[in-house]
Amino acid sequence: SSTRLQSPSNPVVKMAPKAPKFEIKTPKGTRDWSGSDMVLREKIFKTITDVFKRHGGVTIDTPVFELKEILAGKYGEDSKLIYDLADQGGEICSLRYDLTVPFARYLAMNKDVTQIKRYHLAKVYRRDQPAVKKGRMREFYQCDFDIAGVYDPMIPDAEIIRIINEVFEGLGWKGNYTIKLNSRKILDGIFQVCGVPDNLIRPVSSAVDKLDKMPWEDVRKEMVDEKRLAPEAADKIGQYVLLKGKRDLLEKLKKDEALTANASMQQGFADMELLFEYLDAFGADHSVSFDLSLARGLDYYTGIIYEVVTEGSAPKVSGADATAAKAKKKKGKSGDGDEDRSDDPTVGIGSVAAGGRYDNLVGMFSGKTQVPCVGISFGIDRIFSIMRANQVKKDRKNEVDVFVMAFGGGKDFTGLLKERSQVCARLWDAGIKAEFLYKVKPKLQNQFKAAENNGVPFALILGEDELAQGKVKIKEMGLPDDHALKEGELISFENLEQEVKARLDQKKRLD
Amino acid sequence: SSTRLQSPSNPVVKMAPKAPKFEIKTPKGTRDWSGSDMVLREKIFKTITDVFKRHGGVTIDTPVFELKEILAGKYGEDSKLIYDLADQGGEICSLRYDLTVPFARYLAMNKDVTQIKRYHLAKVYRRDQPAVKKGRMREFYQCDFDIAGVYDPMIPDAEIIRIINEVFEGLGWKGNYTIKLNSRKILDGIFQVCGVPDNLIRPVSSAVDKLDKMPWEDVRKEMVDEKRLAPEAADKIGQYVLLKGKRDLLEKLKKDEALTANASMQQGFADMELLFEYLDAFGADHSVSFDLSLARGLDYYTGIIYEVVTEGSAPKVSGADATAAKAKKKKGKSGDGDEDRSDDPTVGIGSVAAGGRYDNLVGMFSGKTQVPCVGISFGIDRIFSIMRANQVKKDRKNEVDVFVMAFGGGKDFTGLLKERSQVCARLWDAGIKAEFLYKVKPKLQNQFKAAENNGVPFALILGEDELAQGKVKIKEMGLPDDHALKEGELISFENLEQEVKARLDQKKRLD
Repeated sequence: SSTRLQSPSNPVVKMAPKAPKFEIKTPKGTRDWSGSDMVLREKIFKTITDVFKRHGGVTIDTPVFELKEILAGKYGEDSKLIYDLADQGGEICSLRYDLTVPFARYLAMNKDVTQIKRYHLAKVYRRDQPAVKKGRMREFYQCDFDIAGVYDPMIPDAEIIRIINEVFEGLGWKGNYTIKLNSRKILDGIFQVCGVPDNLIRPVSSAVDKLDKMPWEDVRKEMVDEKRLAPEAADKIGQYVLLKGKRDLLEKLKKDEALTANASMQQGFADMELLFEYLDAFGADHSVSFDLSLARGLDYYTGIIYEVVTEGSAPKVSGADATAAKAKKKKGKSGDGDEDRSDDPTVGIGSVAAGGRYDNLVGMFSGKTQVPCVGISFGIDRIFSIMRANQVKKDRKNEVDVFVMAFGGGKDFTGLLKERSQVCARLWDAGIKAEFLYKVKPKLQNQFKAAENNGVPFALILGEDELAQGKVKIKEMGLPDDHALKEGELISFENLEQEVKARLDQKKRLD
Repeated sequence: SSTRLQSPSNPVVKMAPKAPKFEIKTPKGTRDWSGSDMVLREKIFKTITDVFKRHGGVTIDTPVFELKEILAGKYGEDSKLIYDLADQGGEICSLRYDLTVPFARYLAMNKDVTQIKRYHLAKVYRRDQPAVKKGRMREFYQCDFDIAGVYDPMIPDAEIIRIINEVFEGLGWKGNYTIKLNSRKILDGIFQVCGVPDNLIRPVSSAVDKLDKMPWEDVRKEMVDEKRLAPEAADKIGQYVLLKGKRDLLEKLKKDEALTANASMQQGFADMELLFEYLDAFGADHSVSFDLSLARGLDYYTGIIYEVVTEGSAPKVSGADATAAKAKKKKGKSGDGDEDRSDDPTVGIGSVAAGGRYDNLVGMFSGKTQVPCVGISFGIDRIFSIMRANQVKKDRKNEVDVFVMAFGGGKDFTGLLKERSQVCARLWDAGIKAEFLYKVKPKLQNQFKAAENNGVPFALILGEDELAQGKVKIKEMGLPDDHALKEGELISFENLEQEVKARLDQKKRLD
């Protein structure tokens, strides 16, 4: 059997006939979350939900699958990425593609809810080509905050921008992110002024949206060759969509007579003017870039749109290199779009948050009743992948504060299992996080190893002699050799809960 | 058009030709969670996770779908309830049926994880007949805690029972729940001693498991008529499986010579003996009932098993009535098992938590490497439906502490939108939860109504005269008419953050 153990190919299967023949893994584009990854992700969640609650948000939870009809016609070209459930009799359902359409469906169903600030942290599903290391997953978390209801214009829109700033500053990204901002009304106005026919406005818009990944020449080519836009219209568009700025850009555009004559443009200007005024009052304009190249793909946006980018959002390689790499890639492609693109330089992390105003989506479900909405969605997996890469200090493995140990040796050593159990029960009763080794007669060394391994800050060590004197030893882990309490202190067994609590509180204050 | 408005049948569709033709709803057996339901559910989650962390638990998150092969052959007869994803090319996947099999798959994939206490709160999916009002859903939350690894026997098993007690006491159920406890080894021993052939042990076991819903006569009939068990074997089983007790029952069984001669029984006795000893040390034996009728359906249990029941767990109607009701029901049944059974008296809430030891499940994936496990799963939706029915006091609608308002009137009233925005920004900067009305010129009355509606405890009222003096008014909501501060207090505008914080802290101490 030693020969079999040394067999180079899959020794486990050979050793154990019961092992399954298929590879044990998670489905492509999905992953397990555990250990310090999970601790970091939970921290990000807490930062975000704290901001949402600070602004009066309440949370709603919707099912992971919806009736297929609910999702139909909401995502344009991306509808092909929706996961369907198998037809096993009964209703035909699909996994949710985002949290926005389910929210609109909820509002259409609950007509008494006319105004709400809701947040929702949950997973969504897209049958897209994955790039796991860059946080591009098929199952991924979205963290959404939306303000629904009829209000005076642009006030909730400005508060959403303020929320974006609070989240990224809360995550420690101050100075390292940009909120790209534009307006569908302004974009539509530009397209109309440039002579784009109505039926080409959405296709041309989606070409413009690629300006963060491609140079203008390629985008122009796509407009003219693929979308059949007149070359002179494309050239006019090029004069506008490459412009970026803040309030100054707005002032510049307002001097353009062709633009100011357009009705959609006038509305867009009025919106943007108010928005900048309110952002100023909220102290939330510092990271904003008014960027005419931002178009956003989804069909349902009607007003301002925004997207948050950071270093790493754009691909490392673009333009001619990207086209070359793409051509090379296509050759070797297996065809099912399943392979991971983590190491593909033409794939960036993409935007880390995005959203906008969508005033007509609820009406697509409810008919008469419109509930205008504005919202933001944070891409948690992408945010995570950036923060993980920059993380220096490792987190504790669990939250346990006290490891309860037995000290003793020789053949008379009982292991004090009953005493350790009772002490743990007393600590748990007092709300103190505690654990012990599941062994009747554990070695002291193994108990310390287990405590160190989980990063537990205190050891509570029971010994027969000390117990006989009504005492127990407490020892803070990881103290330097010359520390006065390096060897621990004897405390009263009777009051051990209070003694432990006092030390935990003190350590918390010092940390 | 007023005629159309008064039309009795679906006026919305008639008014708005764009409204969809299908009913806007969630899929059968699923629901949205919002409002005070959501607040209560979040409270339950927090109680449970606090207990899990107190015992050193760390959380793991797995994908909502797994490769279909992973779930195959794990759930016995219930496999037909698994939801499959449609075959859209690529891998064939199914929605998870529980959190235990994905955890076992995780352990098999991560061979370096040999010992772990993990918890997981997540949704699972079963194509079962729903009873929504009783918390029997097709999409429902499980809250699992499992201890994996090789340890000295029965120590982790006892800690799981302690955890069950902490959770239900934390939820305020003290004295209102029972932990039914049994052992697969004891049950198998009884079946062997009673002369059940090996191939009938699982079918007979699943018949015994129905004793909480059916009288013994019906269970006996099922064994003899359906499972083809010899009548004398069934009668012998009847002498044992109706017994209940605590340590006394264990002592009684140990005096039965037929039982003590059986090898499986000897192991079961030794386990149970240790378990009772450890439960005593943990102070965790008070709610336990050693119940020989508990069998649990799932194939993977190997040692002790348990199930937590409460008032409402059992159906209101049983025995002959149940059979009659069942016969009546079958007649009117549409056949797809889709209709809701909330009002069916033969359906109880069922168990609110369940689990056991499963030592071989990880090996089903990894082949050679076994990782023994013991765990518990809390049925959150059932726990919720019981607590919701008993709830008296309503919760606040959001967590906002301060509603920022403008006071003024007449045609010169500006609405102070800029000032309200700036004050909110200062409060948010200070970490204080605040909101204001999204209206340029709001009426004071409407601002108070909005604050009352959300249960916001403090109003901060800006007025031009007060601002000119560097002051702002703070008013605690809901004070009695004769309270000295009923009309509010003027505080310094410059230090409003500290002034607000001091009042929030004070209110928190008093509440």
